[in-house]
Amino acid sequence: MDTIEQLKLAKSASRKLSKSSYKDRNEALDLISKELIFSKERILAENKKDIELGKKNNLSSALLDRLSLNEKRLSGMSGSIEKVIAQPDPTGKIIKTWKHPLGMNIQQISVPLGVICVIYEARPNVTTDAVSLALKSGNAVVLRGSQHATYSNKAIVDAIHRGLSKSKLSSDVVQFISAKEREESIKILEAVNYVDLIIPRGGEDLKNFVLKYSKIPVIGAGGGTCHLYIDDSAKEKETLDIAINAKTQRPGVCNAIETILVHKDIASQVLPKLEVSLKLKNVEILGCDKTQKIITNVKLATEEDWYKEYLDLKVSVKVVDSIEEAIEHINKYGTKHSESIVTHDTSHAKQFQEEVDAACVYVNASTRFTDGEEFGFGAEIGISTQKLHARGPIALEQLVTYKYLINGEGQIRS
Amino acid sequence: MDTIEQLKLAKSASRKLSKSSYKDRNEALDLISKELIFSKERILAENKKDIELGKKNNLSSALLDRLSLNEKRLSGMSGSIEKVIAQPDPTGKIIKTWKHPLGMNIQQISVPLGVICVIYEARPNVTTDAVSLALKSGNAVVLRGSQHATYSNKAIVDAIHRGLSKSKLSSDVVQFISAKEREESIKILEAVNYVDLIIPRGGEDLKNFVLKYSKIPVIGAGGGTCHLYIDDSAKEKETLDIAINAKTQRPGVCNAIETILVHKDIASQVLPKLEVSLKLKNVEILGCDKTQKIITNVKLATEEDWYKEYLDLKVSVKVVDSIEEAIEHINKYGTKHSESIVTHDTSHAKQFQEEVDAACVYVNASTRFTDGEEFGFGAEIGISTQKLHARGPIALEQLVTYKYLINGEGQIRS
Repeated sequence: MDTIEQLKLAKSASRKLSKSSYKDRNEALDLISKELIFSKERILAENKKDIELGKKNNLSSALLDRLSLNEKRLSGMSGSIEKVIAQPDPTGKIIKTWKHPLGMNIQQISVPLGVICVIYEARPNVTTDAVSLALKSGNAVVLRGSQHATYSNKAIVDAIHRGLSKSKLSSDVVQFISAKEREESIKILEAVNYVDLIIPRGGEDLKNFVLKYSKIPVIGAGGGTCHLYIDDSAKEKETLDIAINAKTQRPGVCNAIETILVHKDIASQVLPKLEVSLKLKNVEILGCDKTQKIITNVKLATEEDWYKEYLDLKVSVKVVDSIEEAIEHINKYGTKHSESIVTHDTSHAKQFQEEVDAACVYVNASTRFTDGEEFGFGAEIGISTQKLHARGPIALEQLVTYKYLINGEGQIRS
Repeated sequence: MDTIEQLKLAKSASRKLSKSSYKDRNEALDLISKELIFSKERILAENKKDIELGKKNNLSSALLDRLSLNEKRLSGMSGSIEKVIAQPDPTGKIIKTWKHPLGMNIQQISVPLGVICVIYEARPNVTTDAVSLALKSGNAVVLRGSQHATYSNKAIVDAIHRGLSKSKLSSDVVQFISAKEREESIKILEAVNYVDLIIPRGGEDLKNFVLKYSKIPVIGAGGGTCHLYIDDSAKEKETLDIAINAKTQRPGVCNAIETILVHKDIASQVLPKLEVSLKLKNVEILGCDKTQKIITNVKLATEEDWYKEYLDLKVSVKVVDSIEEAIEHINKYGTKHSESIVTHDTSHAKQFQEEVDAACVYVNASTRFTDGEEFGFGAEIGISTQKLHARGPIALEQLVTYKYLINGEGQIRS
């Protein structure tokens, strides 16, 4: 079908969906979740085709890993839908209600956005996360997946449509657009009359492409150049635990740290131990000149390194004179994602949380917790590093807008 | 001073401002409000220069009216600041707080955006509205005014800076950039490191220019093609009162109506009376073919007319078969601003409010109430017709974002 025709179907289905009951939407999600499990053999078989093609096309092992499904991952996807079902309804909430002096009642209520388009790379679980969050929040969803996941996505969307056909919702609320030429994507990005929000989920290239061409509002998940600052009051065990976890538990994700800042008064004590722990995990260390004087075999970090999101077993280390210098460094080089301080000075904890400009600011905990599921949101469609509308994990509450309902008895303005 | 230098000053001042107390910000606003009154003679004298230049440059009388200040308008501007002072602090609010299963405390709190840049046309009152709303919400503000208001804006900003110099806030929190060439504006729109939000306040041309060049998030106040739908259950007096008020009380503003939709069963009864009332106010009527059969001397409305924001004593009238047709017309031709139904059928009222996709949906009241002051927000920096972040009047609550503060005791992710 023609792309614009699909968008029109989504828009028209979204109008009915916005009036559907919470119960009907939850029931549809439950049917979808079950259908995924029923269809497991077919989905896994189709996924194998993508994997084989991916190998032929020399996709990296990291990409192949994200792309590949197995029984456990598929139950995880189904389980995520169940977690979204368990969340409260984000729509129809009365945010505020008051009376105008002339007597009209004014209500500010949460309502669905309409049609959400998710453009994403080869991760089949995004398909189900996007669908569950969108439908739960009363939005139709347009899925524009990667060409590398075409077989998997088609099989998953087929299961979703089978689930929907048994529900009270129209199957049109989920539109799948297979990867086509670039011009076709630009058509979507310009369809202001049919799509209300674009969410690119993938690397910086995808995000920049979307921002360049979109005439529709975009919530972009940016990269994460995250930091851990080790204050002079930090305790050793916590410091080492958090640093190693934030760097190595899953280095390829956006909420892993890329730089460790250490207060000068504690540097000579903590850095050698940190070096041992990091090297045990095969982490390559780059450092400032002061770091180089404390631990050996450390390459000098360049100005460019401080901006870098390594997404790898690699970390840059900088010795700072004060918490102020640490905060300034973070606000300059960070991407406003997740930042953490290890400290036992409550005034430093407060200062750090107040002055660091980021979506999530941690005290004595790993940055790895920035995640929709960890935050208890059921799932997420990415993590926003922008400040408007959605900051941090993008989940149900970020997929609604509000409107004002004003009820009068003939009032006019004088 | 160089524009980028001014933006840097604003960014750096915004960091301190975000930590200032509510009391200090209110005190600064009060000093600014007083300083406006102290400086009244100078401001009015400078405003005269703009008016004289405007006449020479053949500005329209509507533009000259918006540009011109007098003692009453100046007290109004000062009074608006006092209304903003009376509003609650939008920052530091705990939106949500909960515990992670591992024991960390997670708080979602409201925080200032940082630096807001308002680009606006020749309306000096926007200068003080923007400053009061920005400072109250803990944001620094960059004012980029129109060349036609340069003398007035400079005099007003001087007064604002004098007020700030007596306060505990830095004068750098308000930066005024006089109108320069287009290239200079583009520089601002690309300064992602120094500006967090752009608000264009003016016509569609300004908005489109900003949307085209901005790399910074934009909240755009779009035009208002607003409608009044007269249901078959509408009562006559209310209908006429609301129609006349919404069309003629101030036809040049965005929340005035441009189209009246009338149910076919009531059309022959209500349209002749409406015609008399509208003609008394010198309103030109265009209509569909059915309208033409009921009232005479009505030009045929073209497809283009239904999209038009006349901003003038002109209205298009269409007879519809049902409330569904009215809603469909509004969702197709409207700009998602303000829409109203006159009805005494509660199920129609509900259906209209649910299905019309707009910032403000009225039952039995004039659309002219869509306004920050009327809504009790103190002031506004425009009315947003987009759905992300801000919808309807843009006031204090729309000028903040949120961040998550996570406090742990060494928690790591397994």
